[in-house]
Amino acid sequence: MRQSELFTKTKREAPKDEEAINSRLLIRAGFIDKAMAGVYSFLPLGFRVLKKIEKIIREEMEAVGGQEILMPTLQPKGNWETTGRWENYDSLFRFKSHYSKNEYVLGPTHEEIISPLLKKFVSSYKDLPRYVFQIQNKFRDETRVKSGLLRGREFIMKDLYSFHATEGDLHDYYEKVKKSYYKIFERSGIGQSTFLTFASGGTFSKYSHEFQTLTQAGEDEIYFCEKCRIAVNKEIIKENNFCPECRSKKLKKEKAVEVGNIFKLKTKYSEPFNLMFKNDQGEVKDVYMGCYGIGLGRLLGTIVEVFHDEKGIIWPEPVAPFRVHLLEFQTDAKKIYNSLQKFGVEVLYDDRKDATAGQKFADADIIGIPWRAIVSKKTGDKIELKKRSESKVKLVSEKELVKIA
Amino acid sequence: MRQSELFTKTKREAPKDEEAINSRLLIRAGFIDKAMAGVYSFLPLGFRVLKKIEKIIREEMEAVGGQEILMPTLQPKGNWETTGRWENYDSLFRFKSHYSKNEYVLGPTHEEIISPLLKKFVSSYKDLPRYVFQIQNKFRDETRVKSGLLRGREFIMKDLYSFHATEGDLHDYYEKVKKSYYKIFERSGIGQSTFLTFASGGTFSKYSHEFQTLTQAGEDEIYFCEKCRIAVNKEIIKENNFCPECRSKKLKKEKAVEVGNIFKLKTKYSEPFNLMFKNDQGEVKDVYMGCYGIGLGRLLGTIVEVFHDEKGIIWPEPVAPFRVHLLEFQTDAKKIYNSLQKFGVEVLYDDRKDATAGQKFADADIIGIPWRAIVSKKTGDKIELKKRSESKVKLVSEKELVKIA
Repeated sequence: MRQSELFTKTKREAPKDEEAINSRLLIRAGFIDKAMAGVYSFLPLGFRVLKKIEKIIREEMEAVGGQEILMPTLQPKGNWETTGRWENYDSLFRFKSHYSKNEYVLGPTHEEIISPLLKKFVSSYKDLPRYVFQIQNKFRDETRVKSGLLRGREFIMKDLYSFHATEGDLHDYYEKVKKSYYKIFERSGIGQSTFLTFASGGTFSKYSHEFQTLTQAGEDEIYFCEKCRIAVNKEIIKENNFCPECRSKKLKKEKAVEVGNIFKLKTKYSEPFNLMFKNDQGEVKDVYMGCYGIGLGRLLGTIVEVFHDEKGIIWPEPVAPFRVHLLEFQTDAKKIYNSLQKFGVEVLYDDRKDATAGQKFADADIIGIPWRAIVSKKTGDKIELKKRSESKVKLVSEKELVKIA
Repeated sequence: MRQSELFTKTKREAPKDEEAINSRLLIRAGFIDKAMAGVYSFLPLGFRVLKKIEKIIREEMEAVGGQEILMPTLQPKGNWETTGRWENYDSLFRFKSHYSKNEYVLGPTHEEIISPLLKKFVSSYKDLPRYVFQIQNKFRDETRVKSGLLRGREFIMKDLYSFHATEGDLHDYYEKVKKSYYKIFERSGIGQSTFLTFASGGTFSKYSHEFQTLTQAGEDEIYFCEKCRIAVNKEIIKENNFCPECRSKKLKKEKAVEVGNIFKLKTKYSEPFNLMFKNDQGEVKDVYMGCYGIGLGRLLGTIVEVFHDEKGIIWPEPVAPFRVHLLEFQTDAKKIYNSLQKFGVEVLYDDRKDATAGQKFADADIIGIPWRAIVSKKTGDKIELKKRSESKVKLVSEKELVKIA
């Protein structure tokens, strides 16, 4: 893409009321825009990153047998009364129609939709297990939103729901999804700093796990075992001051961000919706359920919290908006741009005539594309190549550039 | 995909309160589910069709220079007060937070977000023109919803917005998008039955056009010229009883469904948001805007209205959920399934052991995949191949099947 055609520009300053590192950097670099507190638009660069994250998650969900659907944002009050969450769910957006008697919930999660949906198709043990997921925007009526993309009033989630005939089958699938989550975080570049931990608080804490990523901006404080890649949170550490896996007491402490959570819901939602099946003995039983979430925007924000320096973002290659940032100075790099594109390399081509060299360098640093390639009179028929994450610069030929990038 | 693993099943009956042909067929075939009146989930088969339509639209939007973004559903009251639409917009979902003073709109359209967004990046004629689009769910607080996917309370839209320095430039781009819309409807299979018409009613009717598709279930009545592929609506026909292009008076009358609309907004939204630019003379001017919508669910529903028979849906090939429906009867078609997949053919493989031949035939008809391939003891090492849209059956070899399908 030609940067002269990109409708966004970088900014010197983030909005004054924006506190989090992730959103300050993403707004300044033109990846997102704040529509209001806790609500953001994804602009072309941010949208590209979002799509890359979405692709990784979709592939891994399909690999564990997930069938993709799309459920609505608007949910009927009745379903939430059935589960008792109309009154009890924290930060629920509830509202009435102005034209009819209808009352709605803006979905913060979809157990109230997926459970009655599956009831329409599940009646026998032969219809189980089933794995269904969606990628969709969700809503929470939060009082305070100060963490940028880490906690918003509107946010994009992948939610997978699983349905089983037995608790044992739920357990086996739960362990499979756990492995799939490690893969997702690995592929997104934060594998090294992400730990599995027992979830804190809530009724279901003992049936659920969180994936926590170490960053200085995190909302939670965790104690983790580097060897086993397992963490325990503050509440649990008081009772068990050791790693649950290797029993080592050498735990490290840090603030962390939750990037995923998985729950054994068991029959909590199948019971109120009478989601039952006949087993092979002809007995009617409740379906066992699991649910598994990842916030896409939250993951994107976490990646920025982990990978940045004082100059800007440093995207891990698999989720970068482009692979190469091609800068031209007082010369025409069109030939190299075309050649990279021909070989399928994603390039942001800074062809702007009215930007100074200083502006182009600063933009490349804040946008954070993995490879920076410079073509100028000084470099002749060579290209000056540098990784965003390193300071070493080398001169390469066009052929070498295509090979490396 | 193996049909035994698909979590949906076909149904004999649609819900009693569902009147429209599109939603009755789509629910019976397991493409969509009704979460409540006017609100649907897209199930695996429906989601696949939706993604195919999305891909066609995305490609054509990129071909006219569109840059993709994702704007939020939640919009602040203030922006809607700025344009005067907080009070005046028909069927607007407006509501308050339970925890703060915030008041929100659920976006039925995005001029109130995109105009202030572009203001952050446009200041000079050098920043124009700009073309920005998104594909996202939208909301209308409708009193009556009886048309299935043709008019819902929640629906998925592609909305493109264009920004120009002059009215002439807006005009030229508007004509370009018109052609792009013809391509989209052509590629979706409804090109032959879709006509351009001047929009009916509303302030902007003289600056806007609709694309109407002929179906018996339509909400509008149009008069159309088959030769020029142009239509005029009821109000206009009274004054001008002829085709605006060729002046022929041989117009045909039918009910039709609006599948797309395009508007020259001019400065209607740039003015209230002070979206201005300096022209090359240094004068400050308002930006000219256009907007261009297509409802993806509406388009999907319209395709079903146009292409069905008494037995079920007949998908046009480019938007079909699969290309081949492979049915096995008392034999194992796994080898053919694998071979088709190897050649990149999308196959739904009816490998169910407990379904009767009659059920398999009926399911193939209602689901409506373009090619039906049957493997049974009767067909030996040949495959019985039939198009959903034709009655002719022929026996082919595995090699021929891969070639044809």
